[in-house]
Amino acid sequence: MNQKPQARLFVDAELSEGTAVELTEGQAHYLRNVLRLKEGQLVALFNGRDGEFLARIETLARGRATVALASRLREQALEADLWLVFAPIKRARIDFLIEKATELGASAIYPVMTRHTMVERVNLARLKANAIEAAEQSERLSVPHIHAPRALDQLLASWEPSRRLMLCDESKTAPPVASALKTARPGPWAVLVGPEGGFAEDELDGLRKLPFVCPVSLGPRILRADTAALAGLALLQAFIGDAAR
Amino acid sequence: MNQKPQARLFVDAELSEGTAVELTEGQAHYLRNVLRLKEGQLVALFNGRDGEFLARIETLARGRATVALASRLREQALEADLWLVFAPIKRARIDFLIEKATELGASAIYPVMTRHTMVERVNLARLKANAIEAAEQSERLSVPHIHAPRALDQLLASWEPSRRLMLCDESKTAPPVASALKTARPGPWAVLVGPEGGFAEDELDGLRKLPFVCPVSLGPRILRADTAALAGLALLQAFIGDAAR
Repeated sequence: MNQKPQARLFVDAELSEGTAVELTEGQAHYLRNVLRLKEGQLVALFNGRDGEFLARIETLARGRATVALASRLREQALEADLWLVFAPIKRARIDFLIEKATELGASAIYPVMTRHTMVERVNLARLKANAIEAAEQSERLSVPHIHAPRALDQLLASWEPSRRLMLCDESKTAPPVASALKTARPGPWAVLVGPEGGFAEDELDGLRKLPFVCPVSLGPRILRADTAALAGLALLQAFIGDAAR
Repeated sequence: MNQKPQARLFVDAELSEGTAVELTEGQAHYLRNVLRLKEGQLVALFNGRDGEFLARIETLARGRATVALASRLREQALEADLWLVFAPIKRARIDFLIEKATELGASAIYPVMTRHTMVERVNLARLKANAIEAAEQSERLSVPHIHAPRALDQLLASWEPSRRLMLCDESKTAPPVASALKTARPGPWAVLVGPEGGFAEDELDGLRKLPFVCPVSLGPRILRADTAALAGLALLQAFIGDAAR
């Protein structure tokens, strides 16, 4: 019998050895009709709090599945406290961005409205589903919290100043990202990326005056918002996050 | 009269002040039917060799356009000599990867076949078109050279050893990327990313024995091939490429 889990699923339930967990209808469909698993086969479960557990499929019927938790595979690990703050972009790009931000370990994702933000509606349910799928596939032990859109000003007004905010700044006056991050303190961070049209000049001025903002240059080319977000997250993880360990 | 170019186009022709350039049928269509420009309006041209020129549309008809070159807007700048070597992935992801690699300044792109590569056909013409579009939109002065697919072994057999190869290594034994790159020498580099199924164990062993290979860890999560490629390019540009300046 193959003792390797055939799928990895995110659940809400508490996880501990010996308990049973009922999966969602969608998860039952996925195990039964997409992966064609059978009762008795193994999956892995995680919930963002209790680590990762091996679980055996007990019942698997149309729209219903229960699993029994066996051993814990991994303890919950401390993850980088790293937010992504970005102005929403169009559908295919925002889906991609959520997937990549999840893989790169963003702990929370804040869509924000800026002066030049063109996309006003965000399908939060779809973004959350994307994040869950990316967490399941990347061996991550948690799913980033995706917040409802709000105005950037409003988010900044309640900003905890111990959290540094890396501003992806295209004005050519910001220091190169590696020199800015070389002396960066560990601790809570966020990456801020503007909309496709860029920040308004007075938005940028206001941002640069905030004591927790750290403007950086990502190089001489104009990066799309999604590219800048991914580069920023990868760089922060490499310098002060969990890719630095 | 607005003296700002209304579009940015990559061309093959030599560029110098006072000469005329005939655009392709596709470019004529784009200027006339998509952007709805008129004769007399301005565009910017670049060819990867002569910098960027302002050009005035002289004739614009169905399928035909000529422009007259006015002043040079930018000199050709030295760009990072940074290759991306990757095992092909599925259509939407490879399109995205080429776009992002172009924005992040890859100078050449090599699709390579490895033991576990699932995608064997690559539509080179489409990838080249994606790269041109991304270069036009990112203010880049060149377009990466996209090579025809070949076996990884074959590429490595003719590898110039002065070019360092950053191997994105998921085995948890490689050093964190920031510590590996902190002491990296400037000069020619490449990023190597395996297929979705990963490298075979003996492929990895062979790679690690090559004197020009520098294995790095991009963190504890399993990154998709496209995510790893983008993170690797962003990190190399930040440490030793044109985002470091």
